[in-house]
Amino acid sequence: MDLEALTFDVFGTVVDWRRSIAREIEAFAVERGLEVDGNAFALAWRARYQPAMERVRSGNMDFVKLDVLHRWNLDEVLAEFAMDDVGEEERVELNRAWHRLDPWPDVVEGLTRLKTRFTLATVSNGNVALMVNMAKRAGLPWDVILGAEVARYYKPQPEAYSLTADFLGLDPGRCLMVAAHENDLAAAAACGFCTAYVHRPTEYDDDDKAMPAGDAFDLVVDDFVALAVALDA
Amino acid sequence: MDLEALTFDVFGTVVDWRRSIAREIEAFAVERGLEVDGNAFALAWRARYQPAMERVRSGNMDFVKLDVLHRWNLDEVLAEFAMDDVGEEERVELNRAWHRLDPWPDVVEGLTRLKTRFTLATVSNGNVALMVNMAKRAGLPWDVILGAEVARYYKPQPEAYSLTADFLGLDPGRCLMVAAHENDLAAAAACGFCTAYVHRPTEYDDDDKAMPAGDAFDLVVDDFVALAVALDA
Repeated sequence: MDLEALTFDVFGTVVDWRRSIAREIEAFAVERGLEVDGNAFALAWRARYQPAMERVRSGNMDFVKLDVLHRWNLDEVLAEFAMDDVGEEERVELNRAWHRLDPWPDVVEGLTRLKTRFTLATVSNGNVALMVNMAKRAGLPWDVILGAEVARYYKPQPEAYSLTADFLGLDPGRCLMVAAHENDLAAAAACGFCTAYVHRPTEYDDDDKAMPAGDAFDLVVDDFVALAVALDA
Repeated sequence: MDLEALTFDVFGTVVDWRRSIAREIEAFAVERGLEVDGNAFALAWRARYQPAMERVRSGNMDFVKLDVLHRWNLDEVLAEFAMDDVGEEERVELNRAWHRLDPWPDVVEGLTRLKTRFTLATVSNGNVALMVNMAKRAGLPWDVILGAEVARYYKPQPEAYSLTADFLGLDPGRCLMVAAHENDLAAAAACGFCTAYVHRPTEYDDDDKAMPAGDAFDLVVDDFVALAVALDA
């Protein structure tokens, strides 16, 4: 590999969305004197993520940024959890929980090391403001925020990857897609990207998951510090 | 002002393009045993900048990134300077000189202080790769690279500013446009941005220029450290 840029999936790969959203929902419930299972709420909100993007990917709807999809999904989940009386201002604030996700513990050290050798880009389906606010709060040292909103295509559509390489002015083969999800890496590889699988076994639940078998990816690592070691950063 | 983001013009405001390009051209000339006036070459190259963008702004041509316009202009300037025998690889490398511009001496200290309080965004007509490579080399701590290529409009078209505020998820009035050029600030102000004029008297030549008169801008400062002081950063 002759790499110049590392391009990162974010939700699940960089940040622990499930426990971050659960924490925010539970804090909100305590304030309001409600009983809500934060973990179940987080999973229900996230379950609507792919179907919402699919409305855009299928061409049934013009591109809208993820903050908007998250808000539509929030309104549905609040109804599902019998929380219809949550007001407009509270909904706006709850929707911003996605801008306040915590990184996995290895992330800041790993990215800080990797930044000395490579250009670090986000290639997330999250919108620009979400990525910027998350990075400011968590200290994520990105060089550039790319992904769905600037490409106007949601992953795993090929344009989301190929336009990223074009923005960076690089052949796709000089970019390493880093993700905890095999389908994201497969889509990037189909566009010519190199690929690194990062193991995030507790993304969806607290049980461990197996590493992918075989040699489907250029690198398979446990976390971002291991990625820095593997890339001599 | 209730600011959340500072949005920066880059060529002339953040970096000293004239002396940086002159230096690169003179180094190239020495290598090739040529005599070239680097300063005159830099000014001639830059003189073609606005007319090239105007072809896009006028609608006569689809949007193309600034690296491409710079390259077309370079070919013309090489002909003008009787340097037609410069080869393709050398032209590619010379065109990359715009990715290696040096910041004014106050910039890194000023931005580093401002970053602790505000989101720092580029709003340049330079393309994303140009901005990223410049920032990596010079240590410019941007939070996000925005501007012409992601908006697909060249300044001073209003969309270049209004889409920037939209990417940031902010009302324009929460953004401070920072530039050394009165027309850039006037266009941003027309879109609702606050404005800060930074004095860069040697951008085009080594003679001092006067500060703008009156109260056309929210702030008028000598450099980025003075901007940090004015904004309590």
